[in-house]
Amino acid sequence: MKKRFLLILSFLLVFKFPTFAQEAIFRAQQITSPEIHEDQSVTFRLFAPDANAVQITGDFLPTVKMETQMGTVDGPGKADLTKVENGVWEFKSQNLSPELYNYSFIIDGFSTTDPSNPFLIRDVASVTNIFIIGGGQADYFKTKDIPHGTVSRRWYDSPGLEMDRRITIYTPPGYETSSKKYPVLYLLHGAGGDEEAWISLGRTAQIMDILIHQGKAKPMIVVMPNGNVIQDAAPGEGSLNFYKPVFMAPKTMDGTSEANFMDIIKFVESNYRVHADKSNRAIAGLSMGGFHTMHISRYYPDTFDYMGLFSAAIMPREDATNKVYTDIDGTLKTQMDNGYKLYWIAIGKTDFLFEANKEYRAKLDSMKMPYEYVESEGGHIWRNWRVYLTQFVPMLF
Amino acid sequence: MKKRFLLILSFLLVFKFPTFAQEAIFRAQQITSPEIHEDQSVTFRLFAPDANAVQITGDFLPTVKMETQMGTVDGPGKADLTKVENGVWEFKSQNLSPELYNYSFIIDGFSTTDPSNPFLIRDVASVTNIFIIGGGQADYFKTKDIPHGTVSRRWYDSPGLEMDRRITIYTPPGYETSSKKYPVLYLLHGAGGDEEAWISLGRTAQIMDILIHQGKAKPMIVVMPNGNVIQDAAPGEGSLNFYKPVFMAPKTMDGTSEANFMDIIKFVESNYRVHADKSNRAIAGLSMGGFHTMHISRYYPDTFDYMGLFSAAIMPREDATNKVYTDIDGTLKTQMDNGYKLYWIAIGKTDFLFEANKEYRAKLDSMKMPYEYVESEGGHIWRNWRVYLTQFVPMLF
Repeated sequence: MKKRFLLILSFLLVFKFPTFAQEAIFRAQQITSPEIHEDQSVTFRLFAPDANAVQITGDFLPTVKMETQMGTVDGPGKADLTKVENGVWEFKSQNLSPELYNYSFIIDGFSTTDPSNPFLIRDVASVTNIFIIGGGQADYFKTKDIPHGTVSRRWYDSPGLEMDRRITIYTPPGYETSSKKYPVLYLLHGAGGDEEAWISLGRTAQIMDILIHQGKAKPMIVVMPNGNVIQDAAPGEGSLNFYKPVFMAPKTMDGTSEANFMDIIKFVESNYRVHADKSNRAIAGLSMGGFHTMHISRYYPDTFDYMGLFSAAIMPREDATNKVYTDIDGTLKTQMDNGYKLYWIAIGKTDFLFEANKEYRAKLDSMKMPYEYVESEGGHIWRNWRVYLTQFVPMLF
Repeated sequence: MKKRFLLILSFLLVFKFPTFAQEAIFRAQQITSPEIHEDQSVTFRLFAPDANAVQITGDFLPTVKMETQMGTVDGPGKADLTKVENGVWEFKSQNLSPELYNYSFIIDGFSTTDPSNPFLIRDVASVTNIFIIGGGQADYFKTKDIPHGTVSRRWYDSPGLEMDRRITIYTPPGYETSSKKYPVLYLLHGAGGDEEAWISLGRTAQIMDILIHQGKAKPMIVVMPNGNVIQDAAPGEGSLNFYKPVFMAPKTMDGTSEANFMDIIKFVESNYRVHADKSNRAIAGLSMGGFHTMHISRYYPDTFDYMGLFSAAIMPREDATNKVYTDIDGTLKTQMDNGYKLYWIAIGKTDFLFEANKEYRAKLDSMKMPYEYVESEGGHIWRNWRVYLTQFVPMLF
């Protein structure tokens, strides 16, 4: 045993922690952060013996007022960590309500991740840590010991875009062994997102597994394409390989994505056991994905029976030259006349797109185009979009 | 356009970069790091105006001698960044040979990731940045514009372990649309790894796509299970949800993994179009996965025609009580007598397991058990395992 222990110790010292002195290694390794307590408070810890000041920022802290070009808005708060002993800094939060939260540390003004927490999410080019306070709504975001669907990254051929493109597809538990046909939800990401966004930030697989297991949602296929038509795949996963992602890639909102959406539907309907009809197709998306949902569903006005606009980026399109953005009112009317089962609009009260959505609803009202409307607390954040997904999916099919 | 720009700017300010002053945001955003130059040198940059000292460590730097309990060994080097202007620190490397490298920054003694580089890998609980210098061997690690296989995360039922367990499966380009049957490579991770290790750190999908496209490898299915029998899935992906992973999980090398391996083969052979015979089964693994490969293949001595031991952890098993580790010599002889096509052993000259592998080869020699042996430069590192995979796969089937 001793020989084996020494081998492992040597391995650890040499290959895992080459940059620390040995004492520091073990101190850093012994740190637990975040530590979630019974009362749902959380202690965050950082080993930073040479730091002068350590702060934490994250969406679990009370928001603070910030001045921007658009006026005063709410931004995430900050809190100071206290140096406790042996170079360790600590902060204990209030008791938190159930949610998936994210946070970063700020060490002497430098924003960085928590080295004790390997659970990270990338949003555009920013990487932050995450943790979950379970219970209530947040239980949909945890992996449960129940039957699981399969998550595949496949590549489909887009003749319109002249490339093979990566796509994330969730098939429900039992898909592979049944002979049944399934309905399909097309689920679209926002600006700066890609085919990884809904499955990682959105916890789509966890949410779908649980809703299906509870009998609240029908077993369905969820298709998560990449709406950035200049990419064949998410940053780091495609033929552009590694580069710094930007928030607004070119050609994301110029009609190209919408005009080539049928390539995706054709791929899905010729490669999966699906009911290939309007009553078995839903489309939804967040922010830019809500914008795409709005435009795709009226541009192909007899294709989907269910639409979900989550914090949709209803933005002026006067700069658009693509045919997709012509005759918007006419195609909306055609979509209405063709009929559908659900046109669902959800937005947070403090979302910077709240007014734009209000104007859009006024337009629909004036056309007598039916929709359902959910107004939540909060703003333009993943926290809302995960909840919207859990609300939208049970209404489908 | 102006309205749209302001909306986006507001969005960026409020939701993406809440913790910086505006000037700092744009300075930090303008930083490119790493910047790979034509001559294959690399400039690393960090915006850290308040830091006193910034260093970089990574496997692209010359190794340094380190003292450990096991004597003097090679560890990764460090280099100082220089403060250039406006709070930005810089370091330019030598011209680097093609490879997938990893690195971290050390800011006033605090080891952290590069906030300008969203490409990260987790190895056990440590997260570091990566970059690729293309050309030569490293071209196998890049995503090319060629036909791509599908990577699925599925859950299989293990009656032996009494749990559903997550498994990563690569199916080759064309699998879904052909009616052909395929051979299968079972590819096992090392200690601290899981079903994500080979696909992320090992670049298995990229390597397989390219080898198959070049005609160097037969189209095959690659099955990457989780060898930590106490987990149902990788940390963060299973019913244990988020916790700090450890290097040596309990029960990883006590025979349980090996004794339940047939659950995996049964799942694969009843759920995929495969040739379910010895001549179409290969098994390989790195470090602990090499150990598992050695034991699984002799414990089921007529199951695999191809074995790959990559830096295998051939360790004394005198503490093992599981039947799997009894009659090792007898079962090895049975495996030899049953016959196989390839028993491939590869290890680096400076690997801490080099002597253990030498002893194992001496045992095989004394038994006249045939094997092929590759001795590479370097030690117990992913850099070697990726290369071993590109060497091993073309010899299969």
